[in-house]
Parts: sequence; structure tokens; C-alpha cells
Amino acid sequence: MASNNKNPALDQNFSAGSGKSYSPDIRSVRINTSREGISVPFKQLCLSNGEKILVQDVSGPQTDGVLPRARESWGGSYKDGEVRKVHKTQLDYAKEGHVTAEMEYAATRESMAYGPDMAFTPEFVMKELAAGRAALPANANHPESEPMLIGKAFSVKVNANIGASSLSSGYEEEIKKLRVSLKYGADTIMDLSTGIKELGPLRDALLRRSPVPMGTVPVYEALDRAEGRAKDLTWDLFKKTILDQARQGVDYFTIHAGLTSDLLPYAAKRTLGIISRGGSLMAAAMMNHESENMAWEHFDEILEICHDYDVALSLGDGLRPGCIADACDKAQYGELENIGKLIERCREAGVQSFVEGPGHVPMDRIEENQRLEERYCKDAPFYTLGPLVSDIAPGFDHVTAAIGGARIAECGTSMLCYVTPAEHLALPEEEDVRQGLLVFRLAAHAADLARHLPGATIRDDAMGRARAEFRWYDQFTLSLDPMHAYKVWSSKMPEDCGHTPAFCSMCGPRFCPIRLNRALVYRYSNEENKAD
Amino acid sequence: MASNNKNPALDQNFSAGSGKSYSPDIRSVRINTSREGISVPFKQLCLSNGEKILVQDVSGPQTDGVLPRARESWGGSYKDGEVRKVHKTQLDYAKEGHVTAEMEYAATRESMAYGPDMAFTPEFVMKELAAGRAALPANANHPESEPMLIGKAFSVKVNANIGASSLSSGYEEEIKKLRVSLKYGADTIMDLSTGIKELGPLRDALLRRSPVPMGTVPVYEALDRAEGRAKDLTWDLFKKTILDQARQGVDYFTIHAGLTSDLLPYAAKRTLGIISRGGSLMAAAMMNHESENMAWEHFDEILEICHDYDVALSLGDGLRPGCIADACDKAQYGELENIGKLIERCREAGVQSFVEGPGHVPMDRIEENQRLEERYCKDAPFYTLGPLVSDIAPGFDHVTAAIGGARIAECGTSMLCYVTPAEHLALPEEEDVRQGLLVFRLAAHAADLARHLPGATIRDDAMGRARAEFRWYDQFTLSLDPMHAYKVWSSKMPEDCGHTPAFCSMCGPRFCPIRLNRALVYRYSNEENKAD
Repeated sequence: MASNNKNPALDQNFSAGSGKSYSPDIRSVRINTSREGISVPFKQLCLSNGEKILVQDVSGPQTDGVLPRARESWGGSYKDGEVRKVHKTQLDYAKEGHVTAEMEYAATRESMAYGPDMAFTPEFVMKELAAGRAALPANANHPESEPMLIGKAFSVKVNANIGASSLSSGYEEEIKKLRVSLKYGADTIMDLSTGIKELGPLRDALLRRSPVPMGTVPVYEALDRAEGRAKDLTWDLFKKTILDQARQGVDYFTIHAGLTSDLLPYAAKRTLGIISRGGSLMAAAMMNHESENMAWEHFDEILEICHDYDVALSLGDGLRPGCIADACDKAQYGELENIGKLIERCREAGVQSFVEGPGHVPMDRIEENQRLEERYCKDAPFYTLGPLVSDIAPGFDHVTAAIGGARIAECGTSMLCYVTPAEHLALPEEEDVRQGLLVFRLAAHAADLARHLPGATIRDDAMGRARAEFRWYDQFTLSLDPMHAYKVWSSKMPEDCGHTPAFCSMCGPRFCPIRLNRALVYRYSNEENKAD
Repeated sequence: MASNNKNPALDQNFSAGSGKSYSPDIRSVRINTSREGISVPFKQLCLSNGEKILVQDVSGPQTDGVLPRARESWGGSYKDGEVRKVHKTQLDYAKEGHVTAEMEYAATRESMAYGPDMAFTPEFVMKELAAGRAALPANANHPESEPMLIGKAFSVKVNANIGASSLSSGYEEEIKKLRVSLKYGADTIMDLSTGIKELGPLRDALLRRSPVPMGTVPVYEALDRAEGRAKDLTWDLFKKTILDQARQGVDYFTIHAGLTSDLLPYAAKRTLGIISRGGSLMAAAMMNHESENMAWEHFDEILEICHDYDVALSLGDGLRPGCIADACDKAQYGELENIGKLIERCREAGVQSFVEGPGHVPMDRIEENQRLEERYCKDAPFYTLGPLVSDIAPGFDHVTAAIGGARIAECGTSMLCYVTPAEHLALPEEEDVRQGLLVFRLAAHAADLARHLPGATIRDDAMGRARAEFRWYDQFTLSLDPMHAYKVWSSKMPEDCGHTPAFCSMCGPRFCPIRLNRALVYRYSNEENKAD
């Protein structure tokens, strides 16, 4: 490992009411790749018994300003005036059998190791990319980003949606949401800002500060440029918006190209019609112009732009169901079938691609959604919004969606878009972002365990041992949110209990089963020794 | 319906910062059964468009004092000195083909109707009970309780654990937790108090105020009577405790009778050994006395007591896994097999019974747990604690457990024991109880949808329509927690937006897809009309 410094941004010190204080020993470390000067950051959870647990670290360089443009020197792109273009996309290289620095970086990140111990070799990553089973979003104009993988063979990723709307949330607030997202483990972010004046500058500010790939839904800005009138939303205007955002550095675009006009009558019959913002805008433009979906019609031009800058396409589910009653209908599955056709065109064109999924789906039909996506879209990575498994829990829909998200990820989904407690009610604030990310990190990890991802049990197993040995502070360090766990625990413990009290307030000292266990282990390990 | 009064306990009026105010129109109604004077309470969610949605109501008579002893006059029990005994248990009656008032009450509650429209007839309920596929816990000495069903054919139930420990929580606090549990929809409660002086009086106070069945783990009190010394925990003392609690009115007992001594070496090898409090006490007593599990050895005597008062047996999983590493091992499955043998003896003896389940289980092995339980225990109702699908989220383990709980309930589990955000850290407080119940009501409902329970989609579908029509206040009324949903929404809306603003702060007015939908529906319904 290249370095081993305690990460100042993670070095929080908290003093509870009881007077005890705690600061988790979480360090920043880097693992070198085979390439000079290219190493991958991780967090190392340092436990009191000397154990060190390595976990992925998406938080990037801890700085208040813009990030270094690290990837600029890795090769593969060239200057074309102000902006950079690529010689080939990551998919082109993979199809040629060429391992890029980005692939090697991402393989190291997934494996938490470089060299003979790697769970995933750079060659394996290359093959997954070549087959279109994985994507590595890395726009040449977002050199601040650290390569990562979205694909079924790899750990389940979590996206955090941020962005302002006309009713709330300004520039500073969005930067804060970005920071919270990175702190709590967003693997990618999407800027979904709409209806504010400074869309471009805000996006630039986010890109220059984001070490994770960033996605957008370009039709939002296109409508803004059309001054909110769907009838003025022309292909030229849409195309110009896509081009501008590609040149700015957006790593993936959600484009609702699969929502064709033949599906609109099915959507019109639904309880909730179209609930995707982008989907409803495309439909409005189609109805206004009496024409086919412009993104479907001009898909080759979209592919050309995406290829120039290596923007990945996230094929949007404009017809995702917005309530249980609308799930799995002709509108939804018809669009998915269309997306399957577009995926083939992306692969031919050398444009990386993945597929967006529902939405609201009852639990008994979640597996069907994953299998259909795999069939229609030939194993392209699936990227779902939940799905939410019921409609009746506004205020708790981060949980409604985490239940469905964990399940569909268990079935093979590659990335989950988080849902926050504000879903269906309001624009999320910072605390909503935190809550949403924590429960989705949890859902993604539960799926990693279920999918037998190499190394997935390491942290859980360390937690089990820490519990068995009453190493409370190690339990906090191993938690998804150490300070939160510590606060809950310490608020109920006596002041003088120290770091390893052999009980907690749930059962009190007399009834602690873990304590009673010690006699059990003593007894049977003695018997074994006698037998030996 | 017998009455139609607005429920004063539910009539909350809340004024948000914006100056708007809201009070959900939720009324108490009763549906008569065929029996004179016996009717079943429901909540009726009254919407602004005249729709009325009926939902189960476990909150009981809203009173600060003790509840009326309604079930005393229903027959089936007789006075034996101070306490009541039963002529026959609900299982005895069912096996004879006799429908009791309790069965009719519970069938009406499950069906949300009495008469020709019932989803579940009293005869169907009787057959499920007779086969041991369902339980109707109803101790003759808890006549305040309202009959309900735990079984695979019926809606998924949620249990809330409350109870004091020596480190925290007093008498008043536990009564408050009971009230919160009832308000947020606990179908049963368990009093898990340990290590406090007044266990009996506290239990009595809870029973006299609980309209839902109440369970306990009698070995906790037995150890207390043994002054905390496992070596003094004799069968006579344990039996006396069980008898006293049965006479007090406890509706079901968790007894860890399946934890036999041959399984202890397997438990000793685990990362976390035995994490069930009751299980660890039984093991301690076994090791102290160098003897077999006293509940296994004296099971016939336990059955006799349970039969006298119609206490149901919840066969405890003393060897449930406490971490992912320990899941699905020989200790856990060996105990489950033992429990299967005990279930047969319960059924022969006319004692209602069900089976407690894990614990910590990775998602990919949840279905296996349900199927094994059905096989070993001949379709006896399964009652699980989660399962938790990971170990790394203390502070968020209500969600970890709701993810697993929803999944195992989808597979067929009958009742979920809630887990609160305090799990693994501290004794839950009132707000933890609320949070735990809300996410578990959600998990249970998601499973009801997945299991195609008759009527399960009614509330979701009403929510979908309310969303389509911007009936915001109806959306809150339909929510699991109306006031919470309202607070989140109203905190971000302009002051003067009224009751049906056609947007919210997520997208703002210009980008609202639901608004754009109106054009879609207009267009295609017009086309259809033209075609007609």
C-alpha cells in the first residue's frame, strides 16, 4: 500500500451526553496498480484487536475546492479545442482486447487488491465490458472521476439523485448534497436539477467536485432552453443540449429513447399514466409535434455524440409504473423490449449502455422484471429505482424501495438508484440524502452477500466477532454509520462503563446472552481438549 | 355497520410551519357478526371524493384505564376460583368442527366484512385452526383481547416487543410503549421485561390495557425468581412461573423446548454462540444441572397448563443465528427439527402452537428457511425476527430486518417480530417503537400484496388514484403515518397552495409529470371516443 494516513475528513470526534467520546479509526490507504502513479483509494477500518478491514472508498480527495484532473494523463483522449475527445471508448478498447488504465483501476477497486490476490483481473473486467455486461462511465471531460464498474459480476452500486427544482434548493445546497452523498457512499450521482436559472454553471460546479461518475437527464435542460414549452422542444435543441453536456463532462445520459408512440395508448389507460419526468416530456413533445419520439428517430446522432466523449447511455424507462396497479403492463414491458433493440445498436456503435428499471412493483413480480431485462437487453446492466413494493408508505419510501431494491439486486441488478424519505412528498434535503444512501448501501450490501461476491462477508464476520467479544467501539467502526451507532448506544449506557462493558441496555448485565455464551464455549472447548 | 363515529384518538390536528393545518378523516366503525352484541372494529379512511377505505384496527377501545372484559360473556370458559379455565381450546373446538365466537370474530376481521362478501368464512378459519396451519391466541384470562389469526392464509401480522430492563425503562414508560404499539398497528405484543422488581404487576397492567394478544418468555421471570442464578433455575420454579403467567392471562409463551443438549457443541463452535436470551438461559441451566433441557423433558406438563387456559405455544428458536456467519447451521436446523416433533405433540394435546424463526440470514437462504420450517413443522405458522440480511447496519437494523422480513413473509411466514432502530445497541424507546412498527407494517403489507391476499391492493389503488388527481390530503389519509407524510410535504410547499396544488416541491409546477399526463389521457381517451 502506498500510504497509510488517518483520513482527516473521517476523523470525527463526538462526545455524548454521558461524557464518553469516540472517534472511529478509519484511515485512507491506496493500493498501487501496475501503472506508475496510478493507485486506488480505500478506507481501512482499524479495530482494537489489530484487524484491518478494507472497504471501497468513493469519497475522493477531501477538499473544499475543485478536484485534481487525475485521469487526464492516463491516455486515450485528445484535445479538440477546449474540450477532450476520445480515440476510442472503453467499450471499443475492450472489444479489441485492450486493457486500459481505467479498467485496471476499476478491477483493483472491485477486488480490493492488485496482483495475484485480485478477485477480478483487469482482463476479466475487459471481457465483461466487451460483452456489454458491464459499463465503466468515464467521459474524457470529467478527468476528476475515479473509474468504477456497473455490472452484474461486480458489487452492487448505488446512485444518489441530487439537484435543485424551482421551488427549493440552491447552488450551495446542492454542493452540500454532493458532499453528503460522497460521505455516505454514492457510487454515482445524478444531477436532476430543473427549472433554475443557472443549470449549466451548477452542473459544472458539481462535475469539478465529483470523484464519482455523474449522470443527467438532458431533456430537462432542453425543455428549459425551450422556455418550458413542449411544442418548442425540437430535435435540434435537444441535440445541442446533449452535445453541450457531453462536452462539459457528464458521464452518462438518461435518454428515454425507447418510449415509442405506439405505447402511449397503453400508458393513457393506466391509473397513473407516465410518472417519469423525462418520459412525460418526451410524450408531450411527441403529442405536440404529432411525431415519433425524437430520440428514437435520431438515435444514431445520439450515439455519435456519446462515442466522441465516451458518454454512457442509461436508457430511460419513461414508462416505468408509478403505482402497484400499473406494474408489469404492456406499456412498461413494451418499452423494455424497445430498449433491448437500442442496446444492440449501442454495442455496435461502441457506446457503453445500461438499462433503467422500475418503479413500483409488487414483490412477487420483481424476479420477472430482472429476467425480462436480461432477455430483452442481452444482460446489459440493470439500474433500478427501487422498485417500491407498495404505495402506502410516503415518508418511509426509502424503506419501501430498499426492500424491493435489495430483492432485485439479489436477482442480478447492477445499480440501485436510491430513494429518500422525501420521495412522493418533497425535494430531498441533506438529511434525506443521508438516510436514503444509508439504507441503499445496506440493500446493496445485502445483495452482495446473497450473490456471494468475493469478500462480501469480511465486514459482517468482523462485526460478529466484535459482538462476541464485546468490542463495542469496533462494532461502531464497522458500522455503515459509526457515529450514529455510537450515539444510540452511548445515550443509554452508564457513564463509567468503559470501552468493553460486557452487556448493553437491551438486556442489562444479568441477562446478557453473549456473556452466558462464554460458559458454553469454555465448557465445550474443554471437552474437545479432553477428547484430543 | 354498527356505528360511524370519528375516532377521537385518531383526530389529530397539526399545524405546520406554513400555517396550513390538517386532520385526517379516519373514523371508527364496527361490523356486526352473526352473534348478538359481537362486532369487530375497523378504521375507515374517508377521502375527499367520497371513497371510504376500510382497514384493520388493532388499537382497541381508546381509554386511559383498563379495558372492558368483552370476551368473558362469549362462552367457552368457566370460573375456577379467581381465574378462568377453558372447556376446550380453540384448537379442540376446531378439531370437533365447532365454530366459536372467536373464530367468527377473527374471520370478520380478516375479511373486513361479515356475510356473503367475506373473503374468509368462519368455517375456513375453523379448518385452518384444526389443521394447525393457524393459531388464534386467546387466554381465557385475557378477556380484554380481540381475537386475531396468525397463519399463512391470512394477512401477515406484526409483533412489537416491549418491556423494561434493569438499566432503563419503568412502568409508565412501558404503558406508553404499549399505546404507541397499538397506535401504529401491532397485532400482538410481547412483554420481555427482565431484571426489574415488579415484573408481575407490570405484566398485569399491560394485559389489562392490551386489546391484542400478549406473549412472554417465562424463563425470564423464572430466572428472576431464582435470583439470577442459573443453577437455582429448577423445573418446579419454571413450572410455577408458567402457571402463574397462564393464570394472569398471557396469550402465548415463548418456550425454548427444542434446544436439546446434543445441539450445544454446535452452538459453541459458532462465531456468536447463542444470542437468544431465553436460549442462553436454558443452556446455562442445562450446563449447571448436567441435564437435558427441562422444557423438552417436561413438555407434557407444559402442554397441560397451556391447555387449561388456552395459552398458545410459540416454540422458541434458542439457537437462532446471531450473525450471517452462523446462519443455517446444524445448531439452527437441528433445533427446528426438534420443534417439528413438539408441534405434533401440541396438536395432539389440543394446544395451539407456532414456530419462531431467525435471526440473521443472508437473502439467498431466506426461502430455504421458510420451506424447511413448513416441512419439519407441518405448516405450523412461522413467526420470525426479521431475518436481518446483514450485520453491518446497527442504528438501521429496523430496515435490515424489514428487508428480510418482507422477503420471508412473501415466502409464507405468518407473523413478523418487529426490530427497532435501537436493535444491537440499546433498549428501544417510544420513538424506536414507532419507527420499528411503521417499517414492519410496510414489510407485512408488501408481503400481503405479493401473496395476493384478498383486498390487499385496495389501499394502494386508492393511493394511486389520489396521486393521479393531486388529492394530496387523501394521500396523507391513506398513508401508514398520515401526520408524518403531511409534515414532510407541507414543510416545503408555498403557504397559499391550497389542498390540491397540481405539483409538489420535487419537480415544481413546470416539470410535474402528473400534470403532463392529463394531456395524454385527454388525447387518447378522445381518440378512443372517435373510434367508438
